[in-house]
Amino acid sequence: MKAIKDSVHGHVRLGDVAAELVDTPAFQRLRHIKQLSTVRLVYPSANHTRFEHSLGVYHLAGRAVEGLGVDDDTAAHVRAAAMLHDVGHGPYGHQTEGIIRRATGRDHDDVRWLLTDADREVCQVLERNGLDPERVAALIDGEGALGPLVSGELDVDRMDYLVRDAHHTGVPYGTVDTGRLVTELRLVGGDASAEPQSDADLVLDEGNVATAESLLVARSLMNAVVYRHHVSRVAGAMLERACERYLDRTDTDVEAFRRMADHDLLVELRDRVPALGERIERRDLYKRAVWAELDEVPAGTVDAGRAEERAAEREVADIVGIDRDAVVVDIPSRPALKESGSAVVVDGVPQRLEDASELVAGLRAAERRRWTLGVYCPAEHVDAVAAAARDVLGLRAASRPSA
Amino acid sequence: MKAIKDSVHGHVRLGDVAAELVDTPAFQRLRHIKQLSTVRLVYPSANHTRFEHSLGVYHLAGRAVEGLGVDDDTAAHVRAAAMLHDVGHGPYGHQTEGIIRRATGRDHDDVRWLLTDADREVCQVLERNGLDPERVAALIDGEGALGPLVSGELDVDRMDYLVRDAHHTGVPYGTVDTGRLVTELRLVGGDASAEPQSDADLVLDEGNVATAESLLVARSLMNAVVYRHHVSRVAGAMLERACERYLDRTDTDVEAFRRMADHDLLVELRDRVPALGERIERRDLYKRAVWAELDEVPAGTVDAGRAEERAAEREVADIVGIDRDAVVVDIPSRPALKESGSAVVVDGVPQRLEDASELVAGLRAAERRRWTLGVYCPAEHVDAVAAAARDVLGLRAASRPSA
Amino acid sequence: MKAIKDSVHGHVRLGDVAAELVDTPAFQRLRHIKQLSTVRLVYPSANHTRFEHSLGVYHLAGRAVEGLGVDDDTAAHVRAAAMLHDVGHGPYGHQTEGIIRRATGRDHDDVRWLLTDADREVCQVLERNGLDPERVAALIDGEGALGPLVSGELDVDRMDYLVRDAHHTGVPYGTVDTGRLVTELRLVGGDASAEPQSDADLVLDEGNVATAESLLVARSLMNAVVYRHHVSRVAGAMLERACERYLDRTDTDVEAFRRMADHDLLVELRDRVPALGERIERRDLYKRAVWAELDEVPAGTVDAGRAEERAAEREVADIVGIDRDAVVVDIPSRPALKESGSAVVVDGVPQRLEDASELVAGLRAAERRRWTLGVYCPAEHVDAVAAAARDVLGLRAASRPSA
Amino acid sequence: MKAIKDSVHGHVRLGDVAAELVDTPAFQRLRHIKQLSTVRLVYPSANHTRFEHSLGVYHLAGRAVEGLGVDDDTAAHVRAAAMLHDVGHGPYGHQTEGIIRRATGRDHDDVRWLLTDADREVCQVLERNGLDPERVAALIDGEGALGPLVSGELDVDRMDYLVRDAHHTGVPYGTVDTGRLVTELRLVGGDASAEPQSDADLVLDEGNVATAESLLVARSLMNAVVYRHHVSRVAGAMLERACERYLDRTDTDVEAFRRMADHDLLVELRDRVPALGERIERRDLYKRAVWAELDEVPAGTVDAGRAEERAAEREVADIVGIDRDAVVVDIPSRPALKESGSAVVVDGVPQRLEDASELVAGLRAAERRRWTLGVYCPAEHVDAVAAAARDVLGLRAASRPSA
Repeated sequence: MKAIKDSVHGHVRLGDVAAELVDTPAFQRLRHIKQLSTVRLVYPSANHTRFEHSLGVYHLAGRAVEGLGVDDDTAAHVRAAAMLHDVGHGPYGHQTEGIIRRATGRDHDDVRWLLTDADREVCQVLERNGLDPERVAALIDGEGALGPLVSGELDVDRMDYLVRDAHHTGVPYGTVDTGRLVTELRLVGGDASAEPQSDADLVLDEGNVATAESLLVARSLMNAVVYRHHVSRVAGAMLERACERYLDRTDTDVEAFRRMADHDLLVELRDRVPALGERIERRDLYKRAVWAELDEVPAGTVDAGRAEERAAEREVADIVGIDRDAVVVDIPSRPALKESGSAVVVDGVPQRLEDASELVAGLRAAERRRWTLGVYCPAEHVDAVAAAARDVLGLRAASRPSA
Repeated sequence: MKAIKDSVHGHVRLGDVAAELVDTPAFQRLRHIKQLSTVRLVYPSANHTRFEHSLGVYHLAGRAVEGLGVDDDTAAHVRAAAMLHDVGHGPYGHQTEGIIRRATGRDHDDVRWLLTDADREVCQVLERNGLDPERVAALIDGEGALGPLVSGELDVDRMDYLVRDAHHTGVPYGTVDTGRLVTELRLVGGDASAEPQSDADLVLDEGNVATAESLLVARSLMNAVVYRHHVSRVAGAMLERACERYLDRTDTDVEAFRRMADHDLLVELRDRVPALGERIERRDLYKRAVWAELDEVPAGTVDAGRAEERAAEREVADIVGIDRDAVVVDIPSRPALKESGSAVVVDGVPQRLEDASELVAGLRAAERRRWTLGVYCPAEHVDAVAAAARDVLGLRAASRPSA
Repeated sequence: MKAIKDSVHGHVRLGDVAAELVDTPAFQRLRHIKQLSTVRLVYPSANHTRFEHSLGVYHLAGRAVEGLGVDDDTAAHVRAAAMLHDVGHGPYGHQTEGIIRRATGRDHDDVRWLLTDADREVCQVLERNGLDPERVAALIDGEGALGPLVSGELDVDRMDYLVRDAHHTGVPYGTVDTGRLVTELRLVGGDASAEPQSDADLVLDEGNVATAESLLVARSLMNAVVYRHHVSRVAGAMLERACERYLDRTDTDVEAFRRMADHDLLVELRDRVPALGERIERRDLYKRAVWAELDEVPAGTVDAGRAEERAAEREVADIVGIDRDAVVVDIPSRPALKESGSAVVVDGVPQRLEDASELVAGLRAAERRRWTLGVYCPAEHVDAVAAAARDVLGLRAASRPSA
Repeated sequence: MKAIKDSVHGHVRLGDVAAELVDTPAFQRLRHIKQLSTVRLVYPSANHTRFEHSLGVYHLAGRAVEGLGVDDDTAAHVRAAAMLHDVGHGPYGHQTEGIIRRATGRDHDDVRWLLTDADREVCQVLERNGLDPERVAALIDGEGALGPLVSGELDVDRMDYLVRDAHHTGVPYGTVDTGRLVTELRLVGGDASAEPQSDADLVLDEGNVATAESLLVARSLMNAVVYRHHVSRVAGAMLERACERYLDRTDTDVEAFRRMADHDLLVELRDRVPALGERIERRDLYKRAVWAELDEVPAGTVDAGRAEERAAEREVADIVGIDRDAVVVDIPSRPALKESGSAVVVDGVPQRLEDASELVAGLRAAERRRWTLGVYCPAEHVDAVAAAARDVLGLRAASRPSA
C-alpha cells in the first residue's frame, strides 16, 4: 500500500483505486489549486493545495466508514467520492465558483457531467475497478445516507480543512478533534446496507455535543480571523472582477476557464487584465472605501445579485469619473451557519445541534455581526468612492472605519 | 540568563530574581503539586505541575509588561507575582482549597501572610532584590491596575493553563493565541506609571473580539471535556472527603496540611483513611448514583454549603445502612463565566466582552446546562443510594442516566 | 472499544484484554512511576509516567503486528506483553533497578515470576482471556521471533519513549518517524506462524537505512542532553545511595521495596534518610567534585561494581573527614549502542545497521566521548573531595571543569 | 509594530525597514517562489515559499543579534540582509541556479549588482532608512564577521529552513533547537563593534557540541529523505533540461528569465517545451534508467560539467535512437558537509565542529554513500538507455536497482 506523507495526518495510505486516481491529470491538477486562494496574502504560510486536502479527506472518509459498518462496495464508493470531491473546482477554488455557476449553472460539487463524460480518464479508473461513476458523483453531491459524510453538515471535508487551514495559517483556532469525530459517527434509523437508497441518518453518537460544538466554534473563529479577513476579501473581489473582465475580453470558453490551474490564471490575468492582474500578483491591493455592517445595508442591497453589483460598480465609477475596473463592490451572501443542523444523539435521541446546544444561537448572532459589505478602490480614490458608493447602495449610517 | 526548557513555551529565561525564587523550598514544592490533580485519572498524560505552570505564567507576564510601558520596578513586581501566584496552594491544588478556606478563611491567592511572614526565605529573596513582598502579594490578590494581569479576567495565569492543559491532556480545545493576547494588552484610562495606585484598566486593544472569544470558548470546551469530566469529579470529591476525615482523625494542623505536597497527602490518606485513600491510589472509584441537572435541583440544594452536604451524606448513608464514608455528595457552585467581564476595545471604546460579543450569552447558557450535581458511592449501592439521595436532596424529576 | 487520549498518539484504543489489564492494581501502579525519574529536576515538564508510556507501547505493538501477518493468538500475546512490559519496574524505574538486581538477581523485564506467581490478578486476566502468562513473560524478556519487537533493538518500547520523552521535555531531538517504523517492520527467514518457536528475524524493510539511523541518532542526542544530563545523574546517584541506606536501616523487604511507587519512596527517604531524602525532595543537590572522561579513568575503575564504588565512597569520606553519605561515586557502565545491531534490508539482504550505516561508528565514538565518571558531594566539600577521590580512584589527568 | 503570523515561529514582528521591504515587488515576488521546488511532487504539503522563509530568517537574525552585543546600525544591516538574502533567486530556486550561474557568473547570494543597481525600489528603501545597500549585499555574500550569520556554516538561513522544511513535509527529522542556537551564538576574538572590518569569529558558546551536531544530523537525514529524494531529483533534472531548451528556443534574456516566478516558468515550459513541460506539470515523470553510486563512477564523470553532461545525453539519445530531450543525465556535485567547519567553544577554546565531534566523520561517510548519479528517460526506453548510458559514462559495475 502506497503511503504519502501529510503534514496533518502523518501518513495517508492509498488503496489501489486511490493510487490510480492520484495519477490522473484531473487529480494532479489539484496540486496547482491552492486551498485558500487569496488568504495567503494575509497568512503567508497558507500555501497548501486541494491535492493534499483531498488526500486528507480520503483518509478521514476511510476511517469513518470503518466504524459505520457499511459493506465493502459502499465503502469503496465513499472513499472514491472523498478523493474526487474537489476535482470540479475552477482555478482559485471558491473564488471563481460564482463565475462558473452563473455561466454553466454548475457548482463545484456537481461533478456528474465531469465524472461520467468530460473526464474519461477518471471515469475509466473507476469503471476498471468496478465502481460506478454515477454513484460516486451522487455522493459528492451529498445524496443518499452517506452523501452527508462527503458533503454535508458533518462531512469529512470540513473536518480536514478546519484542521489543515489552522495548521498552515498558524492560527490556533481551527483545531478540531477529528480523531474523535470520525469514530463517533453513526448511521441510525435505516438500513445502512441498503445504500444508496437507504434512509438512514448520519449522526454523532451520544456524548458528543461538545465535540460537535467544537466544529462550529472552530468554523466561526476561522471565519472571523482567516476566511473573511478583509485583505483576503479585497484580493478575492479584485480577482473575481478580473476574471469577469478576462472572459469579456477574450473568447475563452468557460469550460476551458474552469480547467485552468492557479498558475495559468495568474499569468493570464496579469497579461490580459494588467490593471487588476498585476496588482494581485504584487499584492498591491485596493483599499476599503466602504466597510458596512448588516444594519447599515438595505435588504435589497444585501440580496443583490452579481448583475446589480456590477451596475453599482459602474455607477460609482462614473460618478467619481474613474475607470470602471477601479471600483469593486463586494456583497457576501447572508450570514448562515450550516453546521448547526448536524445531528447529535442526546439521551438516546438524535437531535439537531441547534436544539441540543445553547452555543448555536450565540454563534449565529456572531456570524451576523461579522457580516460586512465592502467597496474597494485604489487608495487615492477612497474618499470619493466612499461617498458615491454609500449613496448608490443606499447605506444608512456612516460606515465606521475598521482595523 | 538561566533558561529552562518548557514543553509549551520552548525556553523560559529567568531573570536574577526569578532564578533565586526558583531555588526556594516554597517554589520547589510546586514540583510536587500537579496542575490538574485528579484529571490525570481520565487523561493519563496530564501530569504537569504547578512548577512549570508558574514558570510559564512568569514568562507570559514578562512579555505582557514589555508591551504595557510600565516602569522597571513595577515590571519586576509583576514578574515576581506571576512566579509566586500559586505558592499558596495546598496539596492537589483546587481540590483542597475549600477545606483550607473553611479552616483558615484564606484562598490560595491570599498569600500576604505567607510572603510577609510565614515563608521567610521567599520574603528574603524579594527584599534582597529591592522588591516589596506586600506589593507582590497585593498583585497576586488582583489588586491595583496590574493585579488583573496576574489574577483577573484576562490574566496570564489563564492564558498559560488553557494551553498547557490542552497540550498535556492531548485535547485540542484549549488552544488560545497567547502570542497575540500578551502583545495586545493595554492599560487605558489612567496613569500606568502611578502603579500600584493607578486606576488604569487592563484591556485588549482594538480588533481582538475574536481573540477574547477564543479564550472563553477554550475555557468552556475545556470545562466540558476536561475540568469537569465526571471521573475527575468523582475522584476529586472522594479526595476532599478523605481529607476531611483525615483532619478529623489526626491532629494535623491545617497549616501543616496546606504545606503538604501531593505525594505526602496520597501516602497519608492511603495509610490513615484507607477506605477512601486506597481507592484513590488505585483508581478504584465510586460510581455515580445521582447525576442531576440544574432544573432538577431545588435552589436551596444548589446553594448548600459543605456542612449541609455532609449532613445529607450522613442521612443518605443512614437510610441505606452503609458506612458514612460510602456516600459522597458533590454540589458544584453555580455556573459562572468569569472571563465574560474582560474588557476589549471596540471602535476605540473599551467594552465588556459580554457586551461586545454575542457568543457570551451562548456560552453562559452552555455552562448552565452542563452544571450537574453528583452523588457517588460504591458500585454495589448505586440503586439504594440513588433513591435515598434523590429524596434527601429533594430532586425533582428522575435523573437521567448519563454517559 | 474504549479509547484513552494520549498526548503523543492522539487516541489509544483498548481491546478487551487491555481494558481489563488497565484496571489491575499492578498496572494502575504505573501511574505513580515517572518515566524519567530524576530528569524532571532538569526538564520540569518531564512528568510523564510509565502508565501512559505502556499504553503507547501497546498502541505501537498493535500497529506493528497488523503488518507482520502473525496469527490472532500470537498478536494478542504480543499486545499483552507490550502493555505489561514495565510492570516489573521498581519505584523511580531504572534508578532502583541496580539495587533490585543485586538483591534479587532480577531485571525489570524478567517478569516471569511476577506474571505467573506473584501477581494473581494480572495472571487471572490473562488466563481468563485465553492467554498464557508464561508466553507473555517470555516476550517481555525478548524471547522468540517476536520478543525483539517488545524488548530488542527495534522494539516499540524505544519508539515510544524517544518520541514521548522529547515531547515532554520539550527537546526537539527525539523525534522519530514511528508511523513509518511500525509499518516497515518485517519477519524474514522463518515461519512467523510457528511462534514462539519460530526462528524468523525482525527486520526493517528495504529503503529504511535512514529511518533506522534516525532512531540511533535520536537516542544519541537524547542521551547527551536529557538522559545523562549531569543534574539528573547527580540526583539519581543520590537517590540510589539513599535507597541503599534505607534498606540498610529498615527491615524493608526488597520485594516490598520493588512494589513501592514514587510517592511512597520519596516520603520514606525523606523521613528515614533525611540527609539525602530532604535534599532530593527540595532539589538541593550535591555538586560535582569530579567529572572525568573515559581516558582519565583506569580500566579497573571503569568496570568497578557497586561494592567497589561504596568502598571508594567510604574511603574518600574518611580522608576528608565527613559523613559517608556526603560522598557519592557514580560510575556508569561502559558506553554501548545497542540499537546498532538492528537489522535492515539493503538490496534484498538483511544487514546489521552497523554494517549498512557509516553513521554508527560516529555515534559509537560520540557515546564513548560522552562517558563520564562523577563524584558528588555538598558544595562546601567539593575541593577536598575532588582531591581525595582522584587519588582513591586512580584518575590520570586533571579532570576539566564542565558546564 | 506589524506582526505576520508564521506557521513555524508563531508571530514574526516587522520593524519599520522590514515593513517597507516587504512591500517591494522584489520581495513580494518571493511569494511565488516555492522553497523546495520539485520536492512537493513527493511531499505534497511542501508548498511553502521563500517569502515566509525570508521572514523566518529575518526573525531569527533579529534574535541572534540581540545576544551578540553589536551596535544598532550593524544590527539593522544584518536584519535587512536576512530579509533580502533570497531575492537573487530565479524561478524554482536552486533548480535554476546552475543555468543562471553559467550564463551570468552570478550565484543567488551575489546580490550586490541587484541591490545597488538593478532593483531601485529595494535600494531606495534601504537608503531612505540610512542603510548602505553595498554593506547589506556584502553580508548576504557572507563577508565580514557577521556575514557567516546570514550565509555561513551556522547561519540563520539553515536554522530556519531545516525546521520549516520538516514542518511542511511532515518529516520529523529536521527539528533543530533554533531557540537555543540563536541565543548561544557568540562573537569571539575580535572587536564586534568594528564591523564590517572586524575579524571576530562567530561561534557557538560552551556546552553546545550536541546542539551543533543536531544541525548536521538534521541536514544529513533531510538530505536522505527529502532534498535528494529520487522523484524530486528526476523532476528537477527534467526542469533544468527544459529551461535550457527554453532559453535555446526563445530569445529570452537570462535576466528576464531570472526575474520570472514559478508560475511564469511553469506556463512557459508547458507552452514552449511541451515534451518536458507538460510532464512536469502533470507529474508524469521520467524513470530512472541508471542510479549509480560513487564507486561505480569514474572520477572524470563525477567531475563533469554541464557541457559534458549534455554531450553524454546527446550521445545516449543517438545510440538509442530517440529524441535528445528524452535522456537526462544528472550528476550531483561531490558530497560535502559544509556545516562541519562551524565553530563551537569546547573547554573555553573555539574548535571546528569536525574536530570536536566524532559524529562528523560518520555523517561525511553517509553523505558519500548516498551520492548517486542518475540517468532518466521515459519508461519505455529504460533498458536501452541504461545500457547506452553505462557505456557512454564509463560506469564500472552493474548499478543495482534501488527503491
